Amino acid sequence: MQPTLYIAVVGGGTCDPDTLRRAERVGQLLAERGAVLVCGGLGGVMEGACRGARAKGGTTVGFLPTTARSSANPYVSVALPTGLGEARNTLVVRASDALIAIGGEFGTLSEIAFALKVGVPVVGLDTWELAKHGGPVQAIHCVANPAEAVARALQLAAGAVRATS
Amino acid sequence: MQPTLYIAVVGGGTCDPDTLRRAERVGQLLAERGAVLVCGGLGGVMEGACRGARAKGGTTVGFLPTTARSSANPYVSVALPTGLGEARNTLVVRASDALIAIGGEFGTLSEIAFALKVGVPVVGLDTWELAKHGGPVQAIHCVANPAEAVARALQLAAGAVRATS
Amino acid sequence: MQPTLYIAVVGGGTCDPDTLRRAERVGQLLAERGAVLVCGGLGGVMEGACRGARAKGGTTVGFLPTTARSSANPYVSVALPTGLGEARNTLVVRASDALIAIGGEFGTLSEIAFALKVGVPVVGLDTWELAKHGGPVQAIHCVANPAEAVARALQLAAGAVRATS
Amino acid sequence: MQPTLYIAVVGGGTCDPDTLRRAERVGQLLAERGAVLVCGGLGGVMEGACRGARAKGGTTVGFLPTTARSSANPYVSVALPTGLGEARNTLVVRASDALIAIGGEFGTLSEIAFALKVGVPVVGLDTWELAKHGGPVQAIHCVANPAEAVARALQLAAGAVRATS
Repeated sequence: MQPTLYIAVVGGGTCDPDTLRRAERVGQLLAERGAVLVCGGLGGVMEGACRGARAKGGTTVGFLPTTARSSANPYVSVALPTGLGEARNTLVVRASDALIAIGGEFGTLSEIAFALKVGVPVVGLDTWELAKHGGPVQAIHCVANPAEAVARALQLAAGAVRATS
Repeated sequence: MQPTLYIAVVGGGTCDPDTLRRAERVGQLLAERGAVLVCGGLGGVMEGACRGARAKGGTTVGFLPTTARSSANPYVSVALPTGLGEARNTLVVRASDALIAIGGEFGTLSEIAFALKVGVPVVGLDTWELAKHGGPVQAIHCVANPAEAVARALQLAAGAVRATS
Repeated sequence: MQPTLYIAVVGGGTCDPDTLRRAERVGQLLAERGAVLVCGGLGGVMEGACRGARAKGGTTVGFLPTTARSSANPYVSVALPTGLGEARNTLVVRASDALIAIGGEFGTLSEIAFALKVGVPVVGLDTWELAKHGGPVQAIHCVANPAEAVARALQLAAGAVRATS
Repeated sequence: MQPTLYIAVVGGGTCDPDTLRRAERVGQLLAERGAVLVCGGLGGVMEGACRGARAKGGTTVGFLPTTARSSANPYVSVALPTGLGEARNTLVVRASDALIAIGGEFGTLSEIAFALKVGVPVVGLDTWELAKHGGPVQAIHCVANPAEAVARALQLAAGAVRATS
């Protein structure tokens, strides 16, 4: 039996309609493939992804910064208040076998970087570009659309899980 | 519609057969009542409670101290590696609307005390007794059996949720 | 050369004048013996202990629950905002080689229990009494006054540091 | 009286001699200006900065990922084991009024991004360059040498402290 894969979807707490649509599509596809969706539990990309996943019967885990479960978006099926503030970003990463970043601001970048630091593969859809001393750093698996994002994330996650079992 | 209640079940990572049976019964009853079971994801009381809950189709969340999902007991349905070590005890409490302590050692006491500190009601089944300067401190709701534990925890949790909504 | 010992002083964020005096005396003696005082950085026992230590030129570390350094009492020499809320209690314990509990409420009990869980020795001055199933649990080193508290804590801390070196 | 400023110095746990020299110079200058140096407590840039600061009588705080104080570099004056693993990066940021990044890998980027997320100003010396959708994001204050790094960080830190007082 295949182990269940846990995939983080990270991105801005507010976002434009096109980004929201892509987040929703990522959520749908993850649920159809049987993955558990992990996120920060709030609005924007997080809400879009959760809505998509729930529409397909998926499980959606939200690590909330505050101590109030009611701060979760309505599509989080397992809502987890942490009281850790923004440090809960590290929990989103630690709980995931791979991470899909969609757009996003500094919080998203902190999750991308933390994931790369601790060995969680990162797939990016119109998100941050990494560079140092003027040269690009090829660490994010860049993809062109939600279908590619999900396929790549699941492939990388399965490899990561095998490597640590 | 009633909100879903999240109930922590805490106790020793190893335990005697009788304690294990009671943990399992607590898990069964929580699942029958539609509650999400939250725990530290390992063996003993945690595993017993998760096994009971899963047998009744319930959801079981395990916050793991290490970064390895494979350290979860087989009855955890949402297994969350944290990499925070024993500090993950605070997450078990923060994610719960009430806590049921069954037996337990110092780790369990740390969860009981943290819950009382942050206002999460605690139900106790043959667990720690609190006293200061020679006088007992009546803060744990002591019950005699699993059925009472679950009934009391759900009642207290519903009250706690109402109070913060 | 002896390693510097780090001793946590924990207790209520508010307390009566007698408890405050004892906390201050504990702080003085720790500083005279060259120990670093670790605490939660706020008022009551924490402030009393820090004031005593600073009067003797000691170093006082405060792990603050909020993100505001200004929430520290004025006698904290190294004030560390964490933004982790009450979960910062686990940091106070992890940073210490032994812990002195003076009086205290549930937060103090959570620190005592967490310390016992992770192997940090605990010295108690009029603090919680531990019992299970009607029988006392002898895990806290009970002392009668500040001088005994500091002597015992430093002795236990030195042993704990040797054991892990 | 001016409040003491806390400045994080972040960078690789191993680094080339030139980067090490610059880290050491940053540490010296911070100590000469009376700032407390905050870091992750290990080798490379962290050790270089601490060595420089200690040579000038400064205070150096190290948040360690493990539970072992002995993992700190010898120039950490306040060594704080956390047991939180890499999540301790968030503590380095939360404890600081500004952050100086020198070179660095993904861990450094996670600290830069977390700082920008929570409003801690970031000064960069040959470190990551941020870009999104092909366009640069000007969020790091880039400087050319240690003297500029320290001057800019202290100026930004003082502004940040004033803004929240």
